[in-house]
Amino acid sequence: MGATDRTGVSRRRLLLGGAAAGAGAAVTLGAERAGLLPGSATEPAADTAGINGERIVPFHGAHQAGVTSAPGAYATYLAFDLLDSTDRERLRAWLRLLSDDAARITQGRGALADLEPELAVRPAGLTATFGLGREAVRRTGAEEPAWLGPLPAFPQIDALEDRWSDGDLVVLLHGDDPTAISHLARMLVRDSRAFATLRWRQSGFRRAYGSDAAGTTMRNLFGQVDGSTTPKPGSADFDAAVWAGDDSPAWLRGGTSLVLRRIAMDLEGWDEVGREGREHSVGRRLSDGAPLTGGTERDDVDLEATDASGFTVINPAAHVARSRVSDPAQGIVRIGFSYDDPVEEGALDAAGRPAVSNVGLLFGSWQRDVDAQYVPMQRRLAEADLLNTWTTPIGSGVWAIPPGCDEGGFVGETLFA
Amino acid sequence: MGATDRTGVSRRRLLLGGAAAGAGAAVTLGAERAGLLPGSATEPAADTAGINGERIVPFHGAHQAGVTSAPGAYATYLAFDLLDSTDRERLRAWLRLLSDDAARITQGRGALADLEPELAVRPAGLTATFGLGREAVRRTGAEEPAWLGPLPAFPQIDALEDRWSDGDLVVLLHGDDPTAISHLARMLVRDSRAFATLRWRQSGFRRAYGSDAAGTTMRNLFGQVDGSTTPKPGSADFDAAVWAGDDSPAWLRGGTSLVLRRIAMDLEGWDEVGREGREHSVGRRLSDGAPLTGGTERDDVDLEATDASGFTVINPAAHVARSRVSDPAQGIVRIGFSYDDPVEEGALDAAGRPAVSNVGLLFGSWQRDVDAQYVPMQRRLAEADLLNTWTTPIGSGVWAIPPGCDEGGFVGETLFA
Ligand code: HEM
Ligand code: HEM
Repeated sequence: MGATDRTGVSRRRLLLGGAAAGAGAAVTLGAERAGLLPGSATEPAADTAGINGERIVPFHGAHQAGVTSAPGAYATYLAFDLLDSTDRERLRAWLRLLSDDAARITQGRGALADLEPELAVRPAGLTATFGLGREAVRRTGAEEPAWLGPLPAFPQIDALEDRWSDGDLVVLLHGDDPTAISHLARMLVRDSRAFATLRWRQSGFRRAYGSDAAGTTMRNLFGQVDGSTTPKPGSADFDAAVWAGDDSPAWLRGGTSLVLRRIAMDLEGWDEVGREGREHSVGRRLSDGAPLTGGTERDDVDLEATDASGFTVINPAAHVARSRVSDPAQGIVRIGFSYDDPVEEGALDAAGRPAVSNVGLLFGSWQRDVDAQYVPMQRRLAEADLLNTWTTPIGSGVWAIPPGCDEGGFVGETLFA
Repeated sequence: MGATDRTGVSRRRLLLGGAAAGAGAAVTLGAERAGLLPGSATEPAADTAGINGERIVPFHGAHQAGVTSAPGAYATYLAFDLLDSTDRERLRAWLRLLSDDAARITQGRGALADLEPELAVRPAGLTATFGLGREAVRRTGAEEPAWLGPLPAFPQIDALEDRWSDGDLVVLLHGDDPTAISHLARMLVRDSRAFATLRWRQSGFRRAYGSDAAGTTMRNLFGQVDGSTTPKPGSADFDAAVWAGDDSPAWLRGGTSLVLRRIAMDLEGWDEVGREGREHSVGRRLSDGAPLTGGTERDDVDLEATDASGFTVINPAAHVARSRVSDPAQGIVRIGFSYDDPVEEGALDAAGRPAVSNVGLLFGSWQRDVDAQYVPMQRRLAEADLLNTWTTPIGSGVWAIPPGCDEGGFVGETLFA
């Protein structure tokens, strides 16, 4: 039986503090207790499989868990529009309900009225992060951050569609298991019916758990190593870029903001450029993400280095040259997920042929202050960025991400203080 | 460094025979060699992460690999319609091209004209399985199996839509990593442009790699343990149900057939039934999938057992009572993936309210002979199956799955013999 006892609960799982750890041989059922039962494991666990399913990211804490934990392999964003009848009090009730569902299901327990509690027992790092749009904050009567509302237009690049943009409330679910995400998404949408309508839903992915060594940077669908310079949660650079402080409305302190851009990627056009041209458009190598000025992925890009003819090695219009900031506090923290959706009826690619793919990046970013951090960077990129040839923003939204909450509380409670 | 050597290649990976195993310290690039490089690993591998990425399922062999290997965590089905100009010779050229792409990319090497070969290095068990519809077989001039063509109508249950049905050629991609699947799907669609148009594409999922102990049966989005009785590849029951033999056209021997049904699941309606009612509709427990007549998941359902009042414990209209066969050779081998797609504009649920979810099962099955195995079972289920209350087939297709091929050959070559 090795590391697995009779109930199929591995010692490893106990160490990881998974929800099923205390289940023992309990088999009695009730919608509530059912969430504590292990699944239908009937064969001995392999030494690795199963260890990630019970991985639990605490829901409660000073910050929302989806901001402070590494992005999972899958993400689903849900955006809602408030019903007219959702006034301050009802909004508060709704936020409480959402937090309650998320607090239970991310911890491996079914929601209160969850009829499929077994779908909750393998959260695999599931997190839920809630954000409020301008109208939602307005209805609470709390102070609105100046940056809360649609981004300024970037007419050089934008081709925004309503159906991928905005929303009074956003939820980001990310984790390593699609079944767990699907289950929580449904519970949240179902429990929102009396308060809001679902405006849109967008899903994306990164490498699956177990595909890459821990700490490996993801690749996007252009094949690029994407996220090399992103500060890790807990680092000083992360804290400086992300957490709203004393210059923010009091309710937002310990929170942040989310910008989400749905950016279509023209893979067919990209394919027609040689590897060299593609590397120059970013300033990094495709093979391993290292700067074109040498070294390895984690080495700094040298924007000043010149080649034999005196030109800078990194094109001044390369994506990294345009997006980079010297002060980490002026930077953003990116959280990207690839999307690959079915081609829509009649869709054409950039060259006017019937489209072969409908792919891109769900480009998310955390920052203290959208106007101070995101907008100047996006403006520089809109003005010049070699990558723009193959990328088109088709959705956009901005939300305030409240701080976390303690047990018994709910995300957004600070708005009602 | 433990089990990880300097190139980040773990011994485990070597044991698993991953593509990166021989990479050593090579760093020279070329579209071809790039496929052999490890990714952008820059931190030491954890003891588990990374071990599944290089898992390779051989493409060549007597049978197609996607039939003989356990279903991966994700699946994408692609269906194509032949261009009028795709005659016998062009069809042959196309099939060769498809096999070539699949043979390379599933083995962790980029396709011939692959400009993102780095996306191919983590196949994570990726497989590609090709199937032909009636029109495609007709164009080759080969003998058509009698069962090749749309299923008979099941008017009691069917609400089939064209956009999820049929197609002259189908590809099933399954594996544990969505990036790998996305990449191969795109290569196949791109390389098909001169031969066919993409008719539809459907994607689904099961539990992620690492979420459950090996051998754990998946749960579908009703929360049911689904697939308990499915024979494992290599077992006598599997072989008896799946492989086409001497009574099939010669080109199909060692192959099989695929039926794919897209079955919408009414989760909102399902939620309104108590757990007991839901268990009775199938005849198995929700908690662990065990028969209502007792025992554990792997024990036989006892259709004769009666309760104190003399009724059978398992309702004669329960799903397992209606679907079950006594002779495994008359059975089918199910391969299911859940789907959870965005709700479509204006969609209503079964109760006429704005829909909360758009979920269901991509129900696939392998069988030697569709008419002899699938149709009688589906007919029994269409006539009476308690589960029908909450399930609606909205897509359907039937394809002949040729046998596998050896290196240098291609799937479908037997049609041109
Ligand atoms: C589909 C669209 C995009 C793609 C494919 C993309 C890709 C990349 C890649 C490959 C890198 C280099 C590796 C790394 O440091 O992560 C990078 C860096 C970066 N990108 Fe993007 N990016 C996109 C959109 C954006 C947008 C919209 C922004 C912000 C408005 C942005 C901001 C940055 C920043 C700040 C860096 C780091 C620069 C540095 O400090 O070296 N990117 N991006
Ligand atoms: C959304 C639709 C469906 C759902 C949710 C569903 C669910 C289930 C469940 C929970 C079981 C019991 C566990 C197991 O043995 O796997 C089962 C068994 C089975 N189902 Fe389905 N099923 C569906 C559609 C179908 C269809 C369309 C067919 C074939 C035409 C089918 C054939 C079978 C068979 C053969 C068994 C095994 C019966 C036995 O030998 O005990 N199912 N299904």
